[in-house]
Amino acid sequence: MIIIGEKINVMTKEIGKAMKERNIEPIIKFAKEQIEAGADYLDINIGPASKDGPELMEWLVTSIQNEFDTPLSLDTINVEAMEAGLKAHKGKALINSASGAKDRLENMMSLAGKYNADIIGLTMMESGVPRDANERMAIAVDIIQGATEHGVSLENLYLDPLVLPICVAQEQAVEAIESIKMFQQLNEPPLKTVIGLSNISNGVPDDTKPLLDRIFLSVCYGAGLTAAIADPLDKELMNSVKTMKIINNETLYCHSYTD
Amino acid sequence: MIIIGEKINVMTKEIGKAMKERNIEPIIKFAKEQIEAGADYLDINIGPASKDGPELMEWLVTSIQNEFDTPLSLDTINVEAMEAGLKAHKGKALINSASGAKDRLENMMSLAGKYNADIIGLTMMESGVPRDANERMAIAVDIIQGATEHGVSLENLYLDPLVLPICVAQEQAVEAIESIKMFQQLNEPPLKTVIGLSNISNGVPDDTKPLLDRIFLSVCYGAGLTAAIADPLDKELMNSVKTMKIINNETLYCHSYTD
Repeated sequence: MIIIGEKINVMTKEIGKAMKERNIEPIIKFAKEQIEAGADYLDINIGPASKDGPELMEWLVTSIQNEFDTPLSLDTINVEAMEAGLKAHKGKALINSASGAKDRLENMMSLAGKYNADIIGLTMMESGVPRDANERMAIAVDIIQGATEHGVSLENLYLDPLVLPICVAQEQAVEAIESIKMFQQLNEPPLKTVIGLSNISNGVPDDTKPLLDRIFLSVCYGAGLTAAIADPLDKELMNSVKTMKIINNETLYCHSYTD
Repeated sequence: MIIIGEKINVMTKEIGKAMKERNIEPIIKFAKEQIEAGADYLDINIGPASKDGPELMEWLVTSIQNEFDTPLSLDTINVEAMEAGLKAHKGKALINSASGAKDRLENMMSLAGKYNADIIGLTMMESGVPRDANERMAIAVDIIQGATEHGVSLENLYLDPLVLPICVAQEQAVEAIESIKMFQQLNEPPLKTVIGLSNISNGVPDDTKPLLDRIFLSVCYGAGLTAAIADPLDKELMNSVKTMKIINNETLYCHSYTD
């Protein structure tokens, strides 16, 4: 189970302000906390950043990689900013994300091929969210075709079934899980999959969110999930992730494996 | 997700004493608590009960069914006691269990056919525990053949992959999960599966057991598990089960779905 730490996001007040003021300190602090908590990647979400995207992304990637070896998940729909981030990134970056929307698919796959980056393929169309697992599969096939056309190895691709809030679209949770199972069958070895975990509990009361998050993640893991964009500072969640790794024989059991 | 409450077990001091003294009160108390906590079945484990098995099982089934409608999982290797329980049981009982051991398989399947009961097929041999998912599959095929020979519908069969303690056989957890996936493919509609949940955390420190139990159950559920023999009085576990049912669209989401 790969955990992509979600805390460096322009939408949160502290990080938004730090990005605007080019103040790296709060960003380094969040990076450090997430890595210490067990994050395998750090997501760097700058939003569309239409004004100064490339310069902002380059600054973030360089500054964070000066301090840590953890690979970054570059999260923007701004193609120039994405390329600036990929140019600056040492090692293999993760592009978050390409979707079924034709332009974005072309642009992002082209960058993934050019920079040999990993890439998340989000099974969503311009026209809206898919209705079921079959519609997600149809978009996944387009994404795979886009990857192949741009010389992106399918081992670099993570398919994202688009998780929706359970309190507004309950029946979609099953479709997302079914998609995780179906996506794997599109290739041998099975394709990798990823979810944006916090989507499931969007709108759920705060005292139930963590339970829903960790059980949904565990169920998806049982269905074959590879990775999740999630909050590594949720200690119970990370203890659950450690338990999954023990169950899956990825880490060695010892009596004191939890935090 | 079907929960088979495990608390009525001769091995626990209070219940063992109550069974010996034919004192139904503590047994009714445990039955009531488990049903109120959400148990779908109650397991009635009398052990081998070589002295007075049939009379004991009949007394238990009759006394419990005088109070509650919840179906019972009759848990003994004593064939005469099993038959006495099945005779006394109103509605469809669950036989726990047949195994790959030839005599036990024949005897229990014969009873399942005769009384149209559900039956758990435990993928274990007389010669010992299976080494991996493939050995479990081989035993599963024998069990299915046994079912067919005795006119037991495959819809009445629950295959149990034999969960072993993670702290002594860590690599077996993956094999059990893999078995759950493989067993389903042995029939269309997919075969049902069941686990003895507490086996996974046998020997694990008390403060880690509940976490391991609920995450293992969730991962198995994601792999397609139908049922678990478990402790319904573990409130966090049952909140996790409620969450699984919400995720799977079996029960309707509401903001206050947890206890």
